[in-house]
Amino acid sequence: MASTSRAWYFAERPEGEPDMDCFDLKEREVPGPDAGQLLVEVRYLSVDPYMRGRMRDRESYAEPWDVGDVLKGVVVGEVVESEHDRYGTGDLVTGEGAWAEHALLNGHEVAPVDPRVADPPAYLGALGMPGRTAYFGLLDVGDPNPGDTVVVSGAAGAVGSVVGQIASLNGCHVVGFAGSDEKTDWLTDDLGFDAAINYKSTDDYRAALDEAAPDGVDVYFDNVGGPITDAVFTKLNLDASVAVCGQIAHYNDEEVPMGPRKLPMLIPSRASVEGFLVSDFSGRFRQASEQLGEWVARGEIQHRETVVDGLDRAPDAFLGLFSGDNIGKQVVRVSE
Amino acid sequence: MASTSRAWYFAERPEGEPDMDCFDLKEREVPGPDAGQLLVEVRYLSVDPYMRGRMRDRESYAEPWDVGDVLKGVVVGEVVESEHDRYGTGDLVTGEGAWAEHALLNGHEVAPVDPRVADPPAYLGALGMPGRTAYFGLLDVGDPNPGDTVVVSGAAGAVGSVVGQIASLNGCHVVGFAGSDEKTDWLTDDLGFDAAINYKSTDDYRAALDEAAPDGVDVYFDNVGGPITDAVFTKLNLDASVAVCGQIAHYNDEEVPMGPRKLPMLIPSRASVEGFLVSDFSGRFRQASEQLGEWVARGEIQHRETVVDGLDRAPDAFLGLFSGDNIGKQVVRVSE
Repeated sequence: MASTSRAWYFAERPEGEPDMDCFDLKEREVPGPDAGQLLVEVRYLSVDPYMRGRMRDRESYAEPWDVGDVLKGVVVGEVVESEHDRYGTGDLVTGEGAWAEHALLNGHEVAPVDPRVADPPAYLGALGMPGRTAYFGLLDVGDPNPGDTVVVSGAAGAVGSVVGQIASLNGCHVVGFAGSDEKTDWLTDDLGFDAAINYKSTDDYRAALDEAAPDGVDVYFDNVGGPITDAVFTKLNLDASVAVCGQIAHYNDEEVPMGPRKLPMLIPSRASVEGFLVSDFSGRFRQASEQLGEWVARGEIQHRETVVDGLDRAPDAFLGLFSGDNIGKQVVRVSE
Repeated sequence: MASTSRAWYFAERPEGEPDMDCFDLKEREVPGPDAGQLLVEVRYLSVDPYMRGRMRDRESYAEPWDVGDVLKGVVVGEVVESEHDRYGTGDLVTGEGAWAEHALLNGHEVAPVDPRVADPPAYLGALGMPGRTAYFGLLDVGDPNPGDTVVVSGAAGAVGSVVGQIASLNGCHVVGFAGSDEKTDWLTDDLGFDAAINYKSTDDYRAALDEAAPDGVDVYFDNVGGPITDAVFTKLNLDASVAVCGQIAHYNDEEVPMGPRKLPMLIPSRASVEGFLVSDFSGRFRQASEQLGEWVARGEIQHRETVVDGLDRAPDAFLGLFSGDNIGKQVVRVSE
């Protein structure tokens, strides 16, 4: 094994939209595992919208990155050196690591990757954190009943695509917002969404919803915010639930964004709006993973990954999230 | 008994702030009670912010008034003619009636007024709909724990003043926003609020909250909306609850008001924001009334009414709600 390999470092805090100046690819010494750790050769690396928050110099739910830090994220890797009893050389595992060719993972926190269940990148999407986010956010926060209308923004993304399918499995009428005809076609033709709205080619979201969700909205799973969300709020039914998972439309805002006030709408609808993080449900991750694994194995939940090739293109993959380049989960293939 | 008496009619829908043109005082025939009804001589009449919603030509939680209708609201009156077994001439009762000298009440829906428990106008405030709104909105929607910081907007109003006192009884740190020094003094000196902020003489609500709520906000009971609410949202603690009871700052808006987007703030805090109406809890009104009656009888909850004299001044009393003329519950004394 080479004694050095490449890793991405956080070079500069962005203002507004991040660009390549924020990233710096450098050779570093391949780290050696301490007790309990695994050294892996990274196969796939996850880039996720929440990482934009880690670029801010501000405490939030995800610890901010310091300039000069190696960038972190969830990876799938093959163990090349193990200091943990449960894993040995050659095992495929997934866990929090570095944007790098080699990464150290905490052996107590990794999960095994089983290529017989799904291709390894699925463990960064439907079978990983995004799938669990969809599972708990929809079923615990949104909590729809059969027959309810469930609307999902960012519906063709890693989380939204799973949300809509779980809602369908629960007998809901499912409507998704996504940003291209290719995406909306995927939602309705392959994933079983009842309707999908291309928000980039639609002027009047409210009118589109009147057609796609004629009975109003019982559960809204929001990954996006902005004008899509503004329109959905005008359609909330009595006792509607809004699960606020993400607000990618606002992650690059430098000032608090302005928009239509929503609190007055919550009184006649008695709607409840709740933010959540998947980590709030960490005690039940196994339950979610087992259920998602079954659904995926039975083909009841389909998944798709958009793969960018090469560690050197990881920043492109990340930046593409904000222009909606990905269909399904955006991953970076680091090695075969 | 005179065969005619005076009643207020809805003359014109307002645009923006209502004014006297919306109201028309006319003589009408004193109505006779049908089976189950009571004719009362109105003693006190309640004016409430939600009535602004009834002036709009739009379905909402309260049925819209039609131009030409007699205005309706909760009254306290003395029975002068009864077609209901349970009540007889001379009984004091409270229920939904007309802005009028004489009103018909539904005998099945009225509640008795007991002057030994509290003066009759209290049955329009702390012992009436506002008290029950405070009770359910705080305890069921906000659901604070002892030691929590509870913030109330419109704290010197009919609902807010009871909310803060119930929160105090539950061992919370209570902070109120109100619109004059007389009001804030009442909150802290008489009602036991831990701190009160005069929003009309304070420029920086966030700085005022930093001082008054140094541990952040666990429960926010919102009667007002607007910039006060914007500031409170920046202070929400993990798993905070917001009970949206009213948004009086916006009731006269003709367009959807704009403000800072709040959904992005709900993710790190995992806060939940819920609109409610007291009518959602109608099955438990007796429970609330008994508890509120006990607290008032024991002096643990104080109440205050701002009384305007004379039926002819009822519109003034209503319009004064939007400039915050009232301390505690605004009522109109129609007759002795």
